[in-house]
Amino acid sequence: MTIQTAVLIETLTALGAEVRWCSCNIFSTQDHAAAAIARDSAAVFAWKGETLQEYWWCTERALDWGPTGGPDLIVDDGGDATLLIHEGVKAEEVYEKTGQLPDPSSTDNAEFQIVLTIIRDGLKADPKKYTRMKERLVGVSEETTTGVKRLYQMQANGTLLFPAINVNDSVTKSKFDNLYGCRHSLPDGLMRATDVMIAGKVAVVCGYGDVGKGCAAALKQAGARVIVTEIDPICALQALMEGLQVLTLGDVVSEADIFVTTTGNKDIIMVNHMRKMKNNAIVCNIGHFDNEIDMLGLENYPGVKRITIKPQTDRWVFPETNTGIIVLAEGRLMNLGCATGHPSFVMSCSFTNQVIAQLELWKEKATGKYEKKVYVLPKHLDEKVAALHLGKLGANLTKLTKDQADYISVPIEGPYKPPHYRY
Amino acid sequence: MTIQTAVLIETLTALGAEVRWCSCNIFSTQDHAAAAIARDSAAVFAWKGETLQEYWWCTERALDWGPTGGPDLIVDDGGDATLLIHEGVKAEEVYEKTGQLPDPSSTDNAEFQIVLTIIRDGLKADPKKYTRMKERLVGVSEETTTGVKRLYQMQANGTLLFPAINVNDSVTKSKFDNLYGCRHSLPDGLMRATDVMIAGKVAVVCGYGDVGKGCAAALKQAGARVIVTEIDPICALQALMEGLQVLTLGDVVSEADIFVTTTGNKDIIMVNHMRKMKNNAIVCNIGHFDNEIDMLGLENYPGVKRITIKPQTDRWVFPETNTGIIVLAEGRLMNLGCATGHPSFVMSCSFTNQVIAQLELWKEKATGKYEKKVYVLPKHLDEKVAALHLGKLGANLTKLTKDQADYISVPIEGPYKPPHYRY
Amino acid sequence: MTIQTAVLIETLTALGAEVRWCSCNIFSTQDHAAAAIARDSAAVFAWKGETLQEYWWCTERALDWGPTGGPDLIVDDGGDATLLIHEGVKAEEVYEKTGQLPDPSSTDNAEFQIVLTIIRDGLKADPKKYTRMKERLVGVSEETTTGVKRLYQMQANGTLLFPAINVNDSVTKSKFDNLYGCRHSLPDGLMRATDVMIAGKVAVVCGYGDVGKGCAAALKQAGARVIVTEIDPICALQALMEGLQVLTLGDVVSEADIFVTTTGNKDIIMVNHMRKMKNNAIVCNIGHFDNEIDMLGLENYPGVKRITIKPQTDRWVFPETNTGIIVLAEGRLMNLGCATGHPSFVMSCSFTNQVIAQLELWKEKATGKYEKKVYVLPKHLDEKVAALHLGKLGANLTKLTKDQADYISVPIEGPYKPPHYRY
Amino acid sequence: MTIQTAVLIETLTALGAEVRWCSCNIFSTQDHAAAAIARDSAAVFAWKGETLQEYWWCTERALDWGPTGGPDLIVDDGGDATLLIHEGVKAEEVYEKTGQLPDPSSTDNAEFQIVLTIIRDGLKADPKKYTRMKERLVGVSEETTTGVKRLYQMQANGTLLFPAINVNDSVTKSKFDNLYGCRHSLPDGLMRATDVMIAGKVAVVCGYGDVGKGCAAALKQAGARVIVTEIDPICALQALMEGLQVLTLGDVVSEADIFVTTTGNKDIIMVNHMRKMKNNAIVCNIGHFDNEIDMLGLENYPGVKRITIKPQTDRWVFPETNTGIIVLAEGRLMNLGCATGHPSFVMSCSFTNQVIAQLELWKEKATGKYEKKVYVLPKHLDEKVAALHLGKLGANLTKLTKDQADYISVPIEGPYKPPHYRY
Repeated sequence: MTIQTAVLIETLTALGAEVRWCSCNIFSTQDHAAAAIARDSAAVFAWKGETLQEYWWCTERALDWGPTGGPDLIVDDGGDATLLIHEGVKAEEVYEKTGQLPDPSSTDNAEFQIVLTIIRDGLKADPKKYTRMKERLVGVSEETTTGVKRLYQMQANGTLLFPAINVNDSVTKSKFDNLYGCRHSLPDGLMRATDVMIAGKVAVVCGYGDVGKGCAAALKQAGARVIVTEIDPICALQALMEGLQVLTLGDVVSEADIFVTTTGNKDIIMVNHMRKMKNNAIVCNIGHFDNEIDMLGLENYPGVKRITIKPQTDRWVFPETNTGIIVLAEGRLMNLGCATGHPSFVMSCSFTNQVIAQLELWKEKATGKYEKKVYVLPKHLDEKVAALHLGKLGANLTKLTKDQADYISVPIEGPYKPPHYRY
Repeated sequence: MTIQTAVLIETLTALGAEVRWCSCNIFSTQDHAAAAIARDSAAVFAWKGETLQEYWWCTERALDWGPTGGPDLIVDDGGDATLLIHEGVKAEEVYEKTGQLPDPSSTDNAEFQIVLTIIRDGLKADPKKYTRMKERLVGVSEETTTGVKRLYQMQANGTLLFPAINVNDSVTKSKFDNLYGCRHSLPDGLMRATDVMIAGKVAVVCGYGDVGKGCAAALKQAGARVIVTEIDPICALQALMEGLQVLTLGDVVSEADIFVTTTGNKDIIMVNHMRKMKNNAIVCNIGHFDNEIDMLGLENYPGVKRITIKPQTDRWVFPETNTGIIVLAEGRLMNLGCATGHPSFVMSCSFTNQVIAQLELWKEKATGKYEKKVYVLPKHLDEKVAALHLGKLGANLTKLTKDQADYISVPIEGPYKPPHYRY
Repeated sequence: MTIQTAVLIETLTALGAEVRWCSCNIFSTQDHAAAAIARDSAAVFAWKGETLQEYWWCTERALDWGPTGGPDLIVDDGGDATLLIHEGVKAEEVYEKTGQLPDPSSTDNAEFQIVLTIIRDGLKADPKKYTRMKERLVGVSEETTTGVKRLYQMQANGTLLFPAINVNDSVTKSKFDNLYGCRHSLPDGLMRATDVMIAGKVAVVCGYGDVGKGCAAALKQAGARVIVTEIDPICALQALMEGLQVLTLGDVVSEADIFVTTTGNKDIIMVNHMRKMKNNAIVCNIGHFDNEIDMLGLENYPGVKRITIKPQTDRWVFPETNTGIIVLAEGRLMNLGCATGHPSFVMSCSFTNQVIAQLELWKEKATGKYEKKVYVLPKHLDEKVAALHLGKLGANLTKLTKDQADYISVPIEGPYKPPHYRY
Repeated sequence: MTIQTAVLIETLTALGAEVRWCSCNIFSTQDHAAAAIARDSAAVFAWKGETLQEYWWCTERALDWGPTGGPDLIVDDGGDATLLIHEGVKAEEVYEKTGQLPDPSSTDNAEFQIVLTIIRDGLKADPKKYTRMKERLVGVSEETTTGVKRLYQMQANGTLLFPAINVNDSVTKSKFDNLYGCRHSLPDGLMRATDVMIAGKVAVVCGYGDVGKGCAAALKQAGARVIVTEIDPICALQALMEGLQVLTLGDVVSEADIFVTTTGNKDIIMVNHMRKMKNNAIVCNIGHFDNEIDMLGLENYPGVKRITIKPQTDRWVFPETNTGIIVLAEGRLMNLGCATGHPSFVMSCSFTNQVIAQLELWKEKATGKYEKKVYVLPKHLDEKVAALHLGKLGANLTKLTKDQADYISVPIEGPYKPPHYRY
């Protein structure tokens, strides 16, 4: 719920939508943006610094149009709204068949306990709420690598309840937002949280996907020596071609000054790593969930002390060494938690994809074009998103002649590339 | 026919193949490499500085195992061997039905006239040569963007005569050879041909695909101010995000010092552009064919004078202005014509893909796995190519735990990415 | 008065000094740092967002130890404390001779009117205050290019009242703080003030000295297209060698998105330039005084409207076009006004020079080593400052053998370079 | 004796000089350039691939105008012509006093033995040759860091025989030729000699002065991971600020792929280092003399085998490991030996300084302005050199107003910087 999403909300409203909104991250709301939207445009359930309980309460509130209404479309980011509906429907089906309520104590995952609690508490009041919701829903357009992964898993399992457009894998999203957005907002977050001089430091970037590439580029350009960790040999070889060293976290944990996780996986930096770090090493995550960093292990480490330097900047001191590390945004997305997320220009690329996806789902709602599967936007729409952004930057595109277009077998007006093209 | 292809030939020979070889470019043969291979390993039909007639004679010779033999597999680069066989088969079919021989004067294209002449002359001696060849052929593995485009066109038209593996679109080929290879060999070619100081100059890169990205990066890093021309808004937006100006050739033709074509299209720099360039502007092509630059228009320009500074470096002087431009490698691939092509490490990535493709085609020759279509290598082989090259660069890969692999739904040993992933 | 100067104050205090402190810039104080120092270490006269009256009141207060005390040494930054004393002494001499008080209305310069007012008001109470001060003063160590320029002018005019050490021209100051400090803090200021995406934008850097070099590098690395304006052909040629375009402000004023002044001169961006800029062009100064930007012309432009987006970020709207520009920090140093100045590591280099200079002045106070002239620190101390900072960054220096040292005619332990060496 | 020096010779000739010329490096002559000059403009004593005997014979021949003539001015590069005259005069003085001839066996240095032999052999024929020469000589202008160091040593010892202008320390020489020239010609030399792919490799740059900075920048930009060795803590800190690791050669000798010496010192890479290097590690020098690399130790290593891959590219195989290293240009300047030296644009900056220095010496030959000391050119001439090169690169300089010039206390037309300014 940033100023960029505020403009997205205004756009959707101007296109005729009635919008309810929540945040995808407990720290990422910009309260002034939320206030302006709440005043002018939409129901907003978001503030900076939510607890996890509040976060899921907000998510549930954003989805609740009352007994006779409901969302027709979801703009999702990370997939939590989609998750809540899918879990809600599952619980309602079990409840209908067996009378059994979901049991929060059935899981170790603290956050999932909250999800189950919310569903359980709602079930008693309205045992068909999520079922009605999914029946009404035309579809979801999903923003992130993480949310998209969940969608493909549900598609593979046959459990996806409505059509989904994978906005993340538009070229004008993943190759811009993830890459250039993070190249901008990683140093922004580091500087606002710690003012650390990046030049001369050793920085470890865990993961060299689009996000990792953006982070490594930013750190290298600012004068750090960057070391990459990777599981994928292709991405590792790309890092090497850019002059970056590829090592394991264990190889460099005691030597580096800045650690950034970008993997979308979990258990990347464990408390056992953190114990071995230099005093005042900075640890942060710009991947997706806070489980990239072992926050649970850190919190439960015997004798560890947490000193809050300022909101979203904590020093954790280990009892054996009396040295400490600086953890940003409690392990959550540091660019949103410690700075203001990606800048408007790149978010405009992403959100133009979102708006086009929403329009497309709505236009085709009755045609059956979209089944309960995951789709990417067709390439001509992806190219359109790019074209819409060129004027602002003073670009002058070249036009193909008919003869040239025929020679390379593309239409003059595009699309210009085969589907497998990687950009 | 460079030292890198020499090692590829030795590898194929060591794997049991009997190899006949020709070059894909009239200027790219390294005579010492050709000589060594001819002495030790294979029949070679290639030398630096062939005429077009000699080039196609070489191609025909390389394919000729005599009446009872023939190629089982083709390693192609640009698709000329594949083209010759397809045109040969087509001509043989017409001849069989109608008795008509191909007529070189039926085309304006000087090079295609040579192709038809060769086929015509061969037809009289052996009217089934290419037909026998295509029947024996297990498949082709193709190296380049240009060659692959031809293959997909034939697949679309239903005229492809044997299975084809698109090696170009292995990540470890197109994202390495095309990008990092050109980043290396473009300045190499410029320096050897002209010794021009790149720093401070204005350079125009036509096209911002993988090759263009590599060229633009090299020129920018060497201190040039780089301007990109593009037809594709997505690639244009990528250029802008890297700080490059995007304009049309017409906008900058009188202002720039260095012009590089990387498009894979034709008619990019026309004689009308060249007339307006600064004195001693450098014009070169690293895309694919020499028709990116209007060499025909240049040669036929009334009163133009060609002064050969040294082989593959010509100054063309226009009569009106008495100023001239420097054209490299007669408009053909300047990195091969003026330098020695890509360096070994990146060619090793490409050729490992070629070898794997050849092995795969041969292994599956009787199983029907490969139809008369174009295939890319499966991702696990692509990752294998990368993995084979990490040790040389001292990399240390991270291993997924079982738990992490499950969390992101990939096998521990890969492949790690969905097919649409863009790297 | 930032956290970095706080550490400097603590260091000076630990070395035995009694410290009084004010800020060098009305926006640059970090109030939490000032509060901590005021509580623990020194008298502090500084807060974020002073008026100019308050600023000079603070300066006067910082210098006032009461009738029997006074500063022995000055750590100056920009030379305002030094200026006040020199102007004070001058006024006291006139007053003694003629009984005439300084007349603030004798100058058009609003800030200098304040200086004269303060001196005039003090004169009546104590007509020998500044004279006593200069007699007691052992010397000043000056931090900035601007302050140093004033000192050399006074030296040339024979009006310098006490010895001065030019800390700015230590290599470990001007080639680090000015260059790498600004490379870090310029984007920091831009991001905090506006969140603008730098990638893809056209940025004009006025001046390509050390500060300009740092700014241009930062903007280029973040993906902007950078244009430099210069008066000095040597610096201009350096910019060109880095791929930057060199034009005049008039050439590009309507085309650029971001304007940064770094010259140390005045009247760089005039209101007549600002009127022609694109809507929401960003205008800021990281040189030294706010007169690099014609703030007076802007404020007095008929019909102009100032809209404060947030503190230190103003939109100025011109009546003819109803478009506006964004001016940062009211034309004052944007890295201090909109962010937190340079990061600690680089300030440590600068302030180590300051401390060494203060120790040197004090040690030699009675020896006559330093006359009323401007000095730079000897090279061995400059090298010492660097050496003290290598360990933090994990560097491992090579040691000369005796034989090698003799061969290049330097002592084994340094200094290693002739005085004219440029680094 | 390259095409760039050819233009210098033509320029000097056009200005009225009678020129005799030799090379400063046994490998750096471009024979076509030498041939053209010998035909049209000047006596040339230089060819590619001289022995050391031939090299000094050429030097002696270039200085010999016969008994009644002699050089009025010397353009020197490395100081060998100056050295020969100084040693010649010294020997003639000893001979006059004592009748003793110089004894080549008095030194271990093989090259100096040749110098003494040449002087000895000449002495018998003409015992006053060098003495007459030095009496006639108006002065020398010296091009290189190394030559300049010798001049300052002679100035310090009081043995300098004629005035010298230090061209190397013009900003437009050392900050352009040494830095940007090497940034260009180091990769050029590497590519022509070995075609090695620089991306992904570990490169060690010994020395981070202007030459080292250029080399490190080139290697980093080409995708290598660069490690710097330094003795000077200031230069080391500069390297760190650019993200380069600073270690000793011993730390990394077994890990790196490419080693470049840039120090101007001796004994940098010893045979004991070379023994420990990886197979096919590349070792080269772009500093000045071949004693940066322990060529003598290598040649005399028991059992070592030298395999010449091609001229100026040798593989040296150690008997213990049967692995070898690649040494370029026999340890001499690899950019001259393996490529064609710096490109014309940057040499034009350097040689404009040379021409201006020669004109200045000649103009002042009778005025006594220049004593037997070392001088740098005044800043306004340095700025003039830069200004003369801006037009070619399309730059547009800004002009100071009178008001601005007064404000910063410089003349409108320059010079713009104080003498100590570092650029």
